Amino acid sequence: MTTTNPSGPPPFTNEDFAVRMRRVASSAAEKGLAGVIVTPGPDLVWLTGYQPTAITERLTMLVLSSDNEPTLLVPVLERPDAEAAEGAGSVSLVDWTDGTDPYEVAGPLLRPDGEFGISDSAWAMHLLGLQQVLPRSSYRSLTECLPMMRAVKDENELMRLAAAGAAADSTYGEIVQRRFAGRLETEVAADLADLLREFGHEQVDFTVVGSGPNGANPHHEAGDRVIEPGDAIVLDFGGLRYGYGSDTTRTVCVGEPTSEIRQVHEIVRQAQQAGVDAVRPGVSCQEIDRAARKVITEAGYGEQFIHRTGHGIGVTTHEPPYMVEGEEQPLVPGMCFSVEPGIYLAGRFGVRIEDIVTVTTDGGRRLNNTDHGLRVVE
Amino acid sequence: MTTTNPSGPPPFTNEDFAVRMRRVASSAAEKGLAGVIVTPGPDLVWLTGYQPTAITERLTMLVLSSDNEPTLLVPVLERPDAEAAEGAGSVSLVDWTDGTDPYEVAGPLLRPDGEFGISDSAWAMHLLGLQQVLPRSSYRSLTECLPMMRAVKDENELMRLAAAGAAADSTYGEIVQRRFAGRLETEVAADLADLLREFGHEQVDFTVVGSGPNGANPHHEAGDRVIEPGDAIVLDFGGLRYGYGSDTTRTVCVGEPTSEIRQVHEIVRQAQQAGVDAVRPGVSCQEIDRAARKVITEAGYGEQFIHRTGHGIGVTTHEPPYMVEGEEQPLVPGMCFSVEPGIYLAGRFGVRIEDIVTVTTDGGRRLNNTDHGLRVVE
Repeated sequence: MTTTNPSGPPPFTNEDFAVRMRRVASSAAEKGLAGVIVTPGPDLVWLTGYQPTAITERLTMLVLSSDNEPTLLVPVLERPDAEAAEGAGSVSLVDWTDGTDPYEVAGPLLRPDGEFGISDSAWAMHLLGLQQVLPRSSYRSLTECLPMMRAVKDENELMRLAAAGAAADSTYGEIVQRRFAGRLETEVAADLADLLREFGHEQVDFTVVGSGPNGANPHHEAGDRVIEPGDAIVLDFGGLRYGYGSDTTRTVCVGEPTSEIRQVHEIVRQAQQAGVDAVRPGVSCQEIDRAARKVITEAGYGEQFIHRTGHGIGVTTHEPPYMVEGEEQPLVPGMCFSVEPGIYLAGRFGVRIEDIVTVTTDGGRRLNNTDHGLRVVE
Repeated sequence: MTTTNPSGPPPFTNEDFAVRMRRVASSAAEKGLAGVIVTPGPDLVWLTGYQPTAITERLTMLVLSSDNEPTLLVPVLERPDAEAAEGAGSVSLVDWTDGTDPYEVAGPLLRPDGEFGISDSAWAMHLLGLQQVLPRSSYRSLTECLPMMRAVKDENELMRLAAAGAAADSTYGEIVQRRFAGRLETEVAADLADLLREFGHEQVDFTVVGSGPNGANPHHEAGDRVIEPGDAIVLDFGGLRYGYGSDTTRTVCVGEPTSEIRQVHEIVRQAQQAGVDAVRPGVSCQEIDRAARKVITEAGYGEQFIHRTGHGIGVTTHEPPYMVEGEEQPLVPGMCFSVEPGIYLAGRFGVRIEDIVTVTTDGGRRLNNTDHGLRVVE
């Protein structure tokens, strides 16, 4: 997470991590939880700076509660890595050894009849192990009980998200000047990955190049299709810079677009603008989805907008809050999420436009700022 | 998983996947389980050939039971990817849409009072969602209830594991001819990754270069330490070739080793040989650990061998069966696992030697065959 780049954001300090852990422990107590159980992944990185080399079947878990100091249980052979983590100074380390039962060591760290929040992506195997050793304990996913744990970003985090967004914008600015026609989607995807790294990303998470009919599958990555003149191409790419995510989408056209492509693109552009315009503190997440969806539905393409409008972003490129029908969480300044409506015409083409937006005291501010018009490429 | 390389293994067929699914459903029934729930990851790849672009919070699960045909629940926007999977012809697809409750769709696929096996790495959030919608259902991790599900490899799988092992051996044969002294660990690690790819790996999972004191941390990857003359260096690397794993370790020395390095290396070499020599059908996994550990303990280094002796390997580089005290599973021909004892002298150096071994009808056969002596490098 830290960087030695003098122009980069300041590194997080041990105190930054301590503050996060205290805040989570007290939020959990306010909700009546006995504590929070955090396993490797984005929650653990955010709370402690610790990321094991690999997420394996060996139990690693951080326990936060308002009664005790933060305690991190690790396999003994990963202890040196855990000790080296940036936030390690604020946690008490406990280890267990291969050939022993890790849940027997974990149990005493938890209140036997407590209700705990647990990381969404904790392994089911570990949850079952805890349920077995503490049969009176109960659990709720962190997204369910503390969905806003990582949602509101502080200044340092916003600086990183803005830097990631700027690098994604530079990547777009460069890719549209390159040739598309006659190249494989995978070749353009490789260019996108190289550019993201060149502009400062330490990790590339996805490089979607959905040309022609492939653009109509919103989760298509990139394949061995040769891009043809006339193709609409969905370009959706992102990764991590300074440990924080980028995620932007633009749809371009190879040569002169048909009037249908122009029309669908314009509808999506207006829907995306409507979604961003709806952002302000106090508005619920589902209102952002509704605002964008309304434009597309009224234009007659409601059935072709087959996903939610957006997702949160931070130390991972996909996290709460979700801009989806049913999500009543009100927006709070400092939240960051995507606004990315799309229209998908099966077998023909797709259009999606996506920016990361952060909630400010009086509205929303885009962290992606490349042109939203339909760009013609060669 | 498939390959068009004419010299490679034959692709898995739809029938291969169908056979695996039927076998798992009937094993589950024999154990009194109502069925098996499989989420994205190695279990799903092995059973269906399906690997979503990313593992996210959106529920994807395969349900296998002896009463019904295999059913795969997917987010609607990932349906085209699922339909394109190699084993898709043998599963019935069901989808759910953003903004609806996926557990309400999942519930009816399961027997309300059934006990189910569930993938170890299924998200806790999903398990909790199922427990909530079906309060009388119960769950056990697949490693606990069907630990041998993927453990015994068929001929095609063994061909792939052997090919991965051979490529790892070629990588070692090449790396020891390069310069080590004066280079960063990360530079040698990058060479290892390039070589693994050059020799046919489509995915590199780890490239450990633990020089001098870093070798004493068995989970050290590679850092910015400059390798020095006299260093012992643990080289542990692997990834996937044709979808199956490699994982081998050798410890080399930069220039003439001290007598202590020679001696520790020789103990580990004998321990590793003892572990491999103990392999034959019917012997329990823990006996492999005991055989290797005995050599190290008797040499006075028992406290410095701080991990289990091995782990299974297949579509992932870390899976059951584990060669660990307490694991009474008897070995069966076709099982493949690592034998990798080590000695770690904190702050000084470490030595580990690792081969993948497959159980044959009359013993064990190494899938890694480079020299086990202490290699001197420049």
